[in-house]
Amino acid sequence: MSDTQTVPVPGRIMAAEMAEQPAVLRRILDEGAPKIFDIAAEIAARNPRFVLLTARGTSDNAALYAKYLIEILLGKPAGLTSMSTTTAYGAKPDLTDVLVITVSQSGGSPDLVASTKAAREAGAITLAVTNNASSPLAEVSEFHIDVLAGPEKALPATKTYTAELLALYLLVEGLRGGDGAAAKELPSLAAGILARQAEVKALAERYRFAQRLVITSRGYGYPTAREAALKLMETTYIPASPFSGADLLHGPLAMVDNVSPVIAIVPDGKGGEALQPVLDRLRGRGADLVVIGQQAQVDVASAGFALPAGVPEEVQAILEILPLQLLAYEVTIARGQDPDAPRALAKVTETH
Amino acid sequence: MSDTQTVPVPGRIMAAEMAEQPAVLRRILDEGAPKIFDIAAEIAARNPRFVLLTARGTSDNAALYAKYLIEILLGKPAGLTSMSTTTAYGAKPDLTDVLVITVSQSGGSPDLVASTKAAREAGAITLAVTNNASSPLAEVSEFHIDVLAGPEKALPATKTYTAELLALYLLVEGLRGGDGAAAKELPSLAAGILARQAEVKALAERYRFAQRLVITSRGYGYPTAREAALKLMETTYIPASPFSGADLLHGPLAMVDNVSPVIAIVPDGKGGEALQPVLDRLRGRGADLVVIGQQAQVDVASAGFALPAGVPEEVQAILEILPLQLLAYEVTIARGQDPDAPRALAKVTETH
Repeated sequence: MSDTQTVPVPGRIMAAEMAEQPAVLRRILDEGAPKIFDIAAEIAARNPRFVLLTARGTSDNAALYAKYLIEILLGKPAGLTSMSTTTAYGAKPDLTDVLVITVSQSGGSPDLVASTKAAREAGAITLAVTNNASSPLAEVSEFHIDVLAGPEKALPATKTYTAELLALYLLVEGLRGGDGAAAKELPSLAAGILARQAEVKALAERYRFAQRLVITSRGYGYPTAREAALKLMETTYIPASPFSGADLLHGPLAMVDNVSPVIAIVPDGKGGEALQPVLDRLRGRGADLVVIGQQAQVDVASAGFALPAGVPEEVQAILEILPLQLLAYEVTIARGQDPDAPRALAKVTETH
Repeated sequence: MSDTQTVPVPGRIMAAEMAEQPAVLRRILDEGAPKIFDIAAEIAARNPRFVLLTARGTSDNAALYAKYLIEILLGKPAGLTSMSTTTAYGAKPDLTDVLVITVSQSGGSPDLVASTKAAREAGAITLAVTNNASSPLAEVSEFHIDVLAGPEKALPATKTYTAELLALYLLVEGLRGGDGAAAKELPSLAAGILARQAEVKALAERYRFAQRLVITSRGYGYPTAREAALKLMETTYIPASPFSGADLLHGPLAMVDNVSPVIAIVPDGKGGEALQPVLDRLRGRGADLVVIGQQAQVDVASAGFALPAGVPEEVQAILEILPLQLLAYEVTIARGQDPDAPRALAKVTETH
């Protein structure tokens, strides 16, 4: 990345924050985990029956990942809230025995604060997961987990996303009495992936002139598909449509032809297996298929980025997004835009 | 529509099915409602604490509409399930006191049948909402609501969508002891909207050459935004990205410029009010803004389609989608494609 050594250059803030991710993950494991496990133990003692997750944008994709963890590892029903039901329509559901987790990088969006306050008044156990311990959201919530990512200055969120994922994984581990062992190797594995930026730069040449992208996955990989689409849209401005593999076959598949590239995130495990028929179908349509995931799947795709083998499926999402963040960055640079400052955006979004 | 009078022509099946919608809505109100209210009374007597909705594709958008109704009108927490947690990962959440509603036009997708069966074994009250009373899904569910839309042959679902919406509205009304009065005028209002196809044809000229679309709304209008995007993608193949207004401001707004048209569905009520700051922001960016909804908002937009005033907000979604179905149809015809037969699609999608 010799062209980002001189300062200031487009994308230097985003590049620096992506590079911090191994250190942030290490910090969460070393300094954050004990507190997360304490909070999890307090919440587990109150035995919530359901979990509701509230978030927007990138944090909403982290919340979706947590939903999979909660359903699969914890065996509790979970849902993502439609925030306007509370903030615009004044809905007052009975939230006794419900754990409401609000995820927000800044902890500053007024609608998140209002809906969390309303949830607490409605009897919920409220937990905020933010990167700002002194935020209004942290204050109105009964519990708060700090994701310890340090200040994030680039408009496209990167290190706060992976930090949220890891914090939420440790939370769910704590709730079920686990020790989070599956996460131990993540900091070094993340460093290994980020060191392969040249591979991503080559991949970026493929998408530089793309008019649109379809991104698909299943299971634990689906939140990655959504976050990759969001990251690519907000930096490159290329419309990127994320679909679960099963939904893709219900209509949007018609959009895919041999000039519309498809990025498939193929988890090493059951999510990847469930995606297999979708990959076969896409290949049958002559789609340009780029695989992020298992080496064997990368080998039979048009192109791809192989992820390390042997990582437990429930934490693969924390690694999968890294080459896709780099891809958003590299395509944006290749198109002559500045990833640090997408047009029209502000860091804290004040929706009410 | 003189060019569809001769048979066979592209889109004649979809056109005929769209035109049936007033009659289908009437049939549900006249023949379906008493049975829906009976089922609702039986379920209400068991007092579920939490509602989970399971669906794919178009039916998933109907399920999302039901989620708003359940949270706002019924005051119960609700969530959309991530089906792969059960079918791929074998999650076994405790579903005592949980109402699981599975929505499917065909009632034939193996994964929906499997997940409903698993939910019933896990203690849930299971209700299938389908257009096929003898489907496998209807059989494995404790309760079944038939949406009475008659056979649907076009690949893009239209009449089954509005039928699902109305059946779900009546269900929620029944669950809270309401009489569904807000729906009474829908058949005649729907007929009035469908008679204005010439207006939509003029609007379609605007989108004929669009490279991409952004579709936004808030609250009760958000499921319409998602369904409109799906319908446009599967028929025209134009990438159409749906965003809740609040999420749009969190990143994807960067995609909007003065050559990317934005379709805003503006409900007449709180959803429309909550969308106002988003509309202002879009106007400030010089976006080509087309409004479906309130006359006053259409008047200040680049173009639009006004919906009848005075309809209770909770049933507006059943009307809002009609001009957007027509739009998908007209743009597809204008682009020389056949709306009845999008490439690559089959009517029943057999995901597992």
